[in-house]
Amino acid sequence: MRRRVRYNRRSERFAYAKIYSTVTVMIEIDGDRLMEDLRKLATFGKLGTGVDRTAFSPQDMQARQWLRDRMIDSGLDAYIDSVGNVFGASPTGGSKIVMGSHTDSVPQGGWLDGAMGVIYGLEISRALLESGATEGCVDVIAFQDEEGTYLPCLGSRTFCGELAGEEIDAAMDGSGHPLREAMAVYDLAERGAAQFEPGFYTAYLEAHIEQGPRLEAENKRIGIVTGIVGIRRFRLTFTGQADHAGTTPMVMRKDAGAALIDLAHVLQSDFRRLAAENTVWNLGDAVFEPGAPNVVPARAVLSVEFRDTSSQVLDRLEARLRELADQATTGPVSLDTAKVVSLEPTPMDSDLGDRIATAAATHEAAWMRMPSGAGHDAMVLGRHMPTAMMFVPSIGGRSHDIVEDTAEADIVLGCRVLATAVKSILSGAIDGR
Amino acid sequence: MRRRVRYNRRSERFAYAKIYSTVTVMIEIDGDRLMEDLRKLATFGKLGTGVDRTAFSPQDMQARQWLRDRMIDSGLDAYIDSVGNVFGASPTGGSKIVMGSHTDSVPQGGWLDGAMGVIYGLEISRALLESGATEGCVDVIAFQDEEGTYLPCLGSRTFCGELAGEEIDAAMDGSGHPLREAMAVYDLAERGAAQFEPGFYTAYLEAHIEQGPRLEAENKRIGIVTGIVGIRRFRLTFTGQADHAGTTPMVMRKDAGAALIDLAHVLQSDFRRLAAENTVWNLGDAVFEPGAPNVVPARAVLSVEFRDTSSQVLDRLEARLRELADQATTGPVSLDTAKVVSLEPTPMDSDLGDRIATAAATHEAAWMRMPSGAGHDAMVLGRHMPTAMMFVPSIGGRSHDIVEDTAEADIVLGCRVLATAVKSILSGAIDGR
Repeated sequence: MRRRVRYNRRSERFAYAKIYSTVTVMIEIDGDRLMEDLRKLATFGKLGTGVDRTAFSPQDMQARQWLRDRMIDSGLDAYIDSVGNVFGASPTGGSKIVMGSHTDSVPQGGWLDGAMGVIYGLEISRALLESGATEGCVDVIAFQDEEGTYLPCLGSRTFCGELAGEEIDAAMDGSGHPLREAMAVYDLAERGAAQFEPGFYTAYLEAHIEQGPRLEAENKRIGIVTGIVGIRRFRLTFTGQADHAGTTPMVMRKDAGAALIDLAHVLQSDFRRLAAENTVWNLGDAVFEPGAPNVVPARAVLSVEFRDTSSQVLDRLEARLRELADQATTGPVSLDTAKVVSLEPTPMDSDLGDRIATAAATHEAAWMRMPSGAGHDAMVLGRHMPTAMMFVPSIGGRSHDIVEDTAEADIVLGCRVLATAVKSILSGAIDGR
Repeated sequence: MRRRVRYNRRSERFAYAKIYSTVTVMIEIDGDRLMEDLRKLATFGKLGTGVDRTAFSPQDMQARQWLRDRMIDSGLDAYIDSVGNVFGASPTGGSKIVMGSHTDSVPQGGWLDGAMGVIYGLEISRALLESGATEGCVDVIAFQDEEGTYLPCLGSRTFCGELAGEEIDAAMDGSGHPLREAMAVYDLAERGAAQFEPGFYTAYLEAHIEQGPRLEAENKRIGIVTGIVGIRRFRLTFTGQADHAGTTPMVMRKDAGAALIDLAHVLQSDFRRLAAENTVWNLGDAVFEPGAPNVVPARAVLSVEFRDTSSQVLDRLEARLRELADQATTGPVSLDTAKVVSLEPTPMDSDLGDRIATAAATHEAAWMRMPSGAGHDAMVLGRHMPTAMMFVPSIGGRSHDIVEDTAEADIVLGCRVLATAVKSILSGAIDGR
């Protein structure tokens, strides 16, 4: 580790907010350098065409050290903070944008998920420095553990001052290994956390692969995220009675499986009717117990999840689910409905979105507005400052898998569009937004 | 082992069939002796209120040795045959009935399943001997492995000459332990198999606990089995594609789970419409893969089983299942339909059933006709001779569990009814049936 930066020192540095600045020159993206850095980053934890770089694995921390050094080489004031975030502050004054994403991956993940948004930030920040602009700049951050190996959005929640120490104390990975122990390996506890004062940043911008098939299917190269969906997840547990499926007459059964099938069928049908344009839902798991061909199911568990950018739509679906659950409990099978996840939607800033759309048009890149159906660090940042996300196409819609990929031309184009948007935003700040 | 009897010797002995006989005296059942033998048998493999006496376990073979000795004590010519059947031949000439069931149990099973039918046979056979009747008698058999620890109905299929050596060679228990090795422990291979010539027996009679709730629910004490249901079992495998359940629009999904739910729902509804009075069906297992709340199910497997005493009814349900499967394959999800079990119904002999009904009326025992929804050795015997089954009530409909039980009064009454039926059948043989 080259240096340590204390929290207090950072706070002082962040304490002055200057939101008016001037950017008069173009930001020239170096596509070769961008791709080179992305490919270098993919060598840490390389697994076939993807990466295995879960938070706090040696591969993850080596990647972060490389990234910090690369930021310093680019002229940023960079360090790894107390939770593993790599933060690079631009030395330039003026209006400030923070850009980034995360460099940790899921197990056996793809090379672009998170990584691309971070390297976009680095490329745009250094290109801006190279342009000679003295007022207005881009800080860059690679958040830790967005994927939740220990604690989802650990890095961005820490950056935004949302995370209590008790949550970190309690966090463990799937094998029961404590987060605190993982952090202790890298001697992070002595460091300060990268954080910011309210109003310090004009905007947070995060580029990401789409992780879905829509841009490809609609032949668009840029997705402008309208909002990050809220998620509600339920676990429905039907309890009946195990009986011999040959000797128990149909009318005497308490069939938990049949009750699940009937409710799930109506749910699918009603959700189709009640959904908004971009609503998605998933009955991702069903388990029958004891699960034998000749035994009436005594217990059946159904997982129901739905997502939308509108809380009203989520409320509508939840109300219907609860109605059906109430009706289902009048039969011989009892039903327990547990809400296991409830995340509210995060709207993205529409003015920032418009600026990205204008930038896309400047580059003649076909674009569309769309929700983000997956969670991102931008979900956290969006609670604290104007935030925008931009998607580039995922080949075949695939992600969280080593086959995940995006055409090089799309990667470079995306960075150019976002650089132009950054210029517009920093210029826009002059206009007093 | 007291003696060994070669197959050939048995065959000779069985070769003469004499179906006309005279039974003029009553068969007096000793209820105390019946209960005492049943309770003694339950000490072998005792597990709480039940038994754990799987085929070829030491407990099973000890029970069989005790039973053979008990048969010999009762005046029968008894031995354990080459597959573990305990066979007791009555020394009396004349018309012959064979009675029995099995003494092996499922793991952690009940004390009456199988055992009761065997001890009924023993009690009726010895009571008949004690009555001094010289023409007409009852042979008794305790079949091996009805429950299929290694090979379902191993004993009865061997008794009926249905079982090829290759099937025995190939049979293994759930842990891959070969049947041949289990048999070798008891030095059975050197023995003959108990078998019979066509026409040798007038009837096979098997008493059994109901293993279901109907007699209790309808307040009857005797069930006269109209037939043993045929069973058809299918495994439906839906194949779609795993996708991110947040980022993949509904219209672009290949959701194997949703396809399963839709088909299962229609199936449940259509089976209700197409079923006969006593048809039963079961969707006993459903598995979603990968089975995560946030991943669209790539694969879903449904188990569908249905049972009826009529092949026509089974054909009707199967035809509908196949129609629905054909329709389901037109969507984005593919469907493979595998028939994994196909057992034809076995009708029981109606004249024998009528005689049991008359006997029940004689004893003022409320009775009803009903199918057997479970398989029994009578299913095998019914292919080779006139066969009847009689049920006594199962408390709470429970079986294949240590809580399995039947009121003592019902056990004794059942034996008296069946003894009276035996008398009627042996007398009936005089009338030239």
